Amino acid sequence: MRKAFFLLLTLVPMAVSGQDQDSLVVRSILNEALTSTEAYENLRYLCKDCKGRIAGTPEAAKAVEFTRQVMLKMDLDSVYLQSLMVKRWVRGQEEHCRITSSMFGSEDLAITGLGLSVGTTDVGLAAKVIEVHGIEDLERVGSEAIKGKIVFFNKPMDPSLLNTFRAYGGAASQRTRGASRAAPYGAMAVVVRSLTTAMDDHPHTGVLYYEDDVDKIPAVAVSTMGAEILSAWLKEDPALQMHLVSNCENMPEVSSYNVIGEIRGTDHPEQIITVGGHLDAWDNSEGAHDDGAGCVQAMEVLRLYKSLGIRPKRTVRAVMFMDEEIAQRGGKKYAELAELRNEDHYVALESDRGGLLPRGFGIGTTDTRLENMLALEKYFKPYGITEFRPGGGGVDIAPLKKFGTPLISFVPDPQRYFDYHHSPNDTFEQVNIRELQMGSAAMASLLYLIDKLDL
Amino acid sequence: MRKAFFLLLTLVPMAVSGQDQDSLVVRSILNEALTSTEAYENLRYLCKDCKGRIAGTPEAAKAVEFTRQVMLKMDLDSVYLQSLMVKRWVRGQEEHCRITSSMFGSEDLAITGLGLSVGTTDVGLAAKVIEVHGIEDLERVGSEAIKGKIVFFNKPMDPSLLNTFRAYGGAASQRTRGASRAAPYGAMAVVVRSLTTAMDDHPHTGVLYYEDDVDKIPAVAVSTMGAEILSAWLKEDPALQMHLVSNCENMPEVSSYNVIGEIRGTDHPEQIITVGGHLDAWDNSEGAHDDGAGCVQAMEVLRLYKSLGIRPKRTVRAVMFMDEEIAQRGGKKYAELAELRNEDHYVALESDRGGLLPRGFGIGTTDTRLENMLALEKYFKPYGITEFRPGGGGVDIAPLKKFGTPLISFVPDPQRYFDYHHSPNDTFEQVNIRELQMGSAAMASLLYLIDKLDL
Repeated sequence: MRKAFFLLLTLVPMAVSGQDQDSLVVRSILNEALTSTEAYENLRYLCKDCKGRIAGTPEAAKAVEFTRQVMLKMDLDSVYLQSLMVKRWVRGQEEHCRITSSMFGSEDLAITGLGLSVGTTDVGLAAKVIEVHGIEDLERVGSEAIKGKIVFFNKPMDPSLLNTFRAYGGAASQRTRGASRAAPYGAMAVVVRSLTTAMDDHPHTGVLYYEDDVDKIPAVAVSTMGAEILSAWLKEDPALQMHLVSNCENMPEVSSYNVIGEIRGTDHPEQIITVGGHLDAWDNSEGAHDDGAGCVQAMEVLRLYKSLGIRPKRTVRAVMFMDEEIAQRGGKKYAELAELRNEDHYVALESDRGGLLPRGFGIGTTDTRLENMLALEKYFKPYGITEFRPGGGGVDIAPLKKFGTPLISFVPDPQRYFDYHHSPNDTFEQVNIRELQMGSAAMASLLYLIDKLDL
Repeated sequence: MRKAFFLLLTLVPMAVSGQDQDSLVVRSILNEALTSTEAYENLRYLCKDCKGRIAGTPEAAKAVEFTRQVMLKMDLDSVYLQSLMVKRWVRGQEEHCRITSSMFGSEDLAITGLGLSVGTTDVGLAAKVIEVHGIEDLERVGSEAIKGKIVFFNKPMDPSLLNTFRAYGGAASQRTRGASRAAPYGAMAVVVRSLTTAMDDHPHTGVLYYEDDVDKIPAVAVSTMGAEILSAWLKEDPALQMHLVSNCENMPEVSSYNVIGEIRGTDHPEQIITVGGHLDAWDNSEGAHDDGAGCVQAMEVLRLYKSLGIRPKRTVRAVMFMDEEIAQRGGKKYAELAELRNEDHYVALESDRGGLLPRGFGIGTTDTRLENMLALEKYFKPYGITEFRPGGGGVDIAPLKKFGTPLISFVPDPQRYFDYHHSPNDTFEQVNIRELQMGSAAMASLLYLIDKLDL
């Protein structure tokens, strides 16, 4: 393939314009991506051999070593680690939720503890349940109705929103803030409807934030099917009892790493182009779409350049960020070291919305560079990638914003993403190799063009 | 929802243009589709309770009765069947392919008989294997090398083509014509690489055509993984033996049905708008994407109109065509009866490319209506449905072409489709409810606009 590409560049440049030549490079990147299985096989390893790689676990350490080895074999200019400390939250052996009603009998609901949650005692807790429609509904329901009960947050994601990330945003506060907002009303624990529009029996976890000076009460997510059952029973029998056991624990911090590989730039090696995903994934999941896909795509950008003989003018770094899910320590450490070393960050791109069909890019920059970057859409239109929009970023690259670095989100189609997100359903089998690789190619092409055209 | 929609129409018409009002209707159709699970549950039944519903089977009869019942419950203006005769091809109990090499030992390969193929005898046949790269490669290889052997057609679909239907078209002749083209060279049987870009162990079936005056030899498809093994072994050991058993059979024709439901038009009831999919599916498959999805989407178009109080000016018919896979008798019968009854077919739309993310429509009409229909893209752009292109149709609606009826294909994203097509992998679980329903909404909206604007 390398030979074919050079042939292309050698034979055609006299006959075609710069834009046409760049279009040919974009096409050659796509061809190489669609005919290679390397990124997909790397993803298989991350999913199957480093399943549940939440920060601080042996699985996360294995993922660090694996991606380091993958990049060492790529003949890059350098491959290295950035050391950092991560929180260590451990799910206990037992997670259990049973509801018992004098009218309906008993039923076990599928639950999962929320990240950073405290556990119940080993025997668990038993209480009545009060259903509320999101944190904004707590005040209406009031202390008298809540005190001594388990609060069941049952605000669904709005299925009519085509942008499922907006639907997620509209319902996420019950997971992130529900425990701390319900505790002052005297809640014993909270059970949160899983953040997905899918109707299935997978509970979806995710981090919560305990607010200062508020009692920490246990918090779990229940599957959407479980939420429907619980809600239906409560309508008929508000006196039903729930028995909840979730013995997760917060442990002392441990060390972990960001993993970085780079191709040094030919003309401006001091200017850094970052392309990344996050290496950690929830402990209940293979972390295929979230975010094994983003990691293997970032490494694939480098492989595509090497394989096609593309030599960027600026230094291109693939970064596997650690600990996006819990405390975002990897992204913070990366920016901290960048500041310490006085690095010049030219642009950063993150893939953390799944290895799904590419739709476009969200471009976050306020200066005149925005218009030029949006205009790159013309190179992608032949491939159905047509949504270039202002506004973008990513949790891990966000700390680079203070340097004025343009931050770009890779935007795949959002319809399927929350079916998988933070759940046991986020498996390797849910990733389509062609969609994954169209994404890798789109990312490699965008950064190639930004670098080549000095945008 | 019906109430909300009328409210919308009642409150806003003074304030908005016709186009804006139509945009609101399109949005209301999408909202209703995304918040309903009826089409998805209908698909579940077709997949799980009418699995393997190839024409002439009890499962196909069950699918006929089920879709008839679904439409009877919809309060339509009429629901009826069209009787037709279908070929009856039956896969035998045993399908088996073992290769034995003095170098590598023995291996069973995953195969499936091709539709309409004759079987081997019960003991099967044993022969050496010769690999060729598509039917165009037979002449180069020649009779001397082929005579007495099993021909292994191993031309892969080109993975670099983004339009996977083009890649399919480039490799399909080895399945449809391979047996008849290889027989004159003295081939004993043919084994065809499955028509998919996926690398897995599902064999993909499909129909073949025996040409007149040529010996009918057995033909099977082998999984892509099986094809890779066979090819690798042959490179090292061209003398390896294959033992092939496939005792399928062609039986006498039996009767079956198209299933039709219609909403009579208010202004031009004599003008027919057809929206359809095909009800039959391969016997090795649940037929979820091919084409249970198309059937439930066609019925959903009617349900959406009823639910939202949309009363089309022309008669809208949902048609479940029988026997697309084997001999296309349903589509032929539908056009034959249309001619007999002197029906006026205004436009026809088929969904037979999977219940996947909608990309656009292919519009097949040569007159001035084309430009007007392509211009409808503006209504779909807010939903990322932007590929309105000339040229379209569908196997079942194709016979309507002789009436000058514009023929439209629903075009979902093609990246995943051939992972499922004609294989045991085409299951209900592979269909995403949101993508399915975005498709239903797009189809309902397009036909609403064509009818409303008299295009």
